[in-house]
Amino acid sequence: MGTNVTEICAANERYAAAFGDKGGLSHDPARRFAIVTCMDCRLDPAKFAGFAEGDAHVIRNAGGRVSDDVIRSLLISYRMLGTNEWFVIQHTHCGMQGPTNEAICARFEEDAAAHGGDAVEAHYIDFMPIAGELEENLVRDVRRLRTHPLVPASIVIHGCIYDVHTGRLIVSEEAEKIGAAK
Amino acid sequence: MGTNVTEICAANERYAAAFGDKGGLSHDPARRFAIVTCMDCRLDPAKFAGFAEGDAHVIRNAGGRVSDDVIRSLLISYRMLGTNEWFVIQHTHCGMQGPTNEAICARFEEDAAAHGGDAVEAHYIDFMPIAGELEENLVRDVRRLRTHPLVPASIVIHGCIYDVHTGRLIVSEEAEKIGAAK
Repeated sequence: MGTNVTEICAANERYAAAFGDKGGLSHDPARRFAIVTCMDCRLDPAKFAGFAEGDAHVIRNAGGRVSDDVIRSLLISYRMLGTNEWFVIQHTHCGMQGPTNEAICARFEEDAAAHGGDAVEAHYIDFMPIAGELEENLVRDVRRLRTHPLVPASIVIHGCIYDVHTGRLIVSEEAEKIGAAK
Repeated sequence: MGTNVTEICAANERYAAAFGDKGGLSHDPARRFAIVTCMDCRLDPAKFAGFAEGDAHVIRNAGGRVSDDVIRSLLISYRMLGTNEWFVIQHTHCGMQGPTNEAICARFEEDAAAHGGDAVEAHYIDFMPIAGELEENLVRDVRRLRTHPLVPASIVIHGCIYDVHTGRLIVSEEAEKIGAAK
């Protein structure tokens, strides 16, 4: 276990050797947008949305959910680094669709029963599973941003669903209505 | 403002048209690692660490900090999706190094003074700025993971610093001592 470090360092040597003029990029995203999406291994936002180093902020967590930490990051993105357009991108066949908080806790309790330790902490975490329809959850997450008191009306917020079986991004019309700048 | 959606959809059309057999990828990361890093626009972890769709989880926020939401995501990554090696990668010249919570609040207060609204909410958010030395902050973030009651001793945790001027990744020896599996 833990055998990836050597390969990653070797790959990084090659990347750094061909770094070119990327050392001169600004920390302000050139295309002034931020993407919030899932940590899922099948997603590469720079590839599926077509952007490069220097262009955009990328924020990712389990589910691509609008958590408090995502709000913290987006507020920094807008106010300190100048983004004015945000994309919340959730996806089909997400690992967060299906299991409940109780089911996730049970997995940690199994661990504790098998290997020792105490899984009580798991009962105090909201794992933010996605209950119900994907688009309904997406629209609610966009609403959370739109109604936040520190998010200005001028920010455009999009909600999208990425299909992991086709690589296709669908913009939610329901989310567009809520996320439009005012 | 908000003009990126057309370009992103066009780029996505091209990506989906060349999607190949990626629709068959598993939602379990093939290389069983997860990367936590900053949302910074200059960072493309798939490129600088050499991995592809299907390989690894990527979790990103402002600073690449080990927030509660990152812990939530990593716990899901390990227990539901099988990762056993985690990389916390912070970087030089980070926008979160320098400004204090007070300075960030002041920017939102300026907004409210100029455009109306009430910035009181900003005073209730910890923006998680990085105070002091970068490596010291990194090691503390790795310690937070290592000592979490739901993180098993078998998980290998690395702490790295990415240099935005050279593209080079440096593995912190101090973090290695703390993050090693037990």
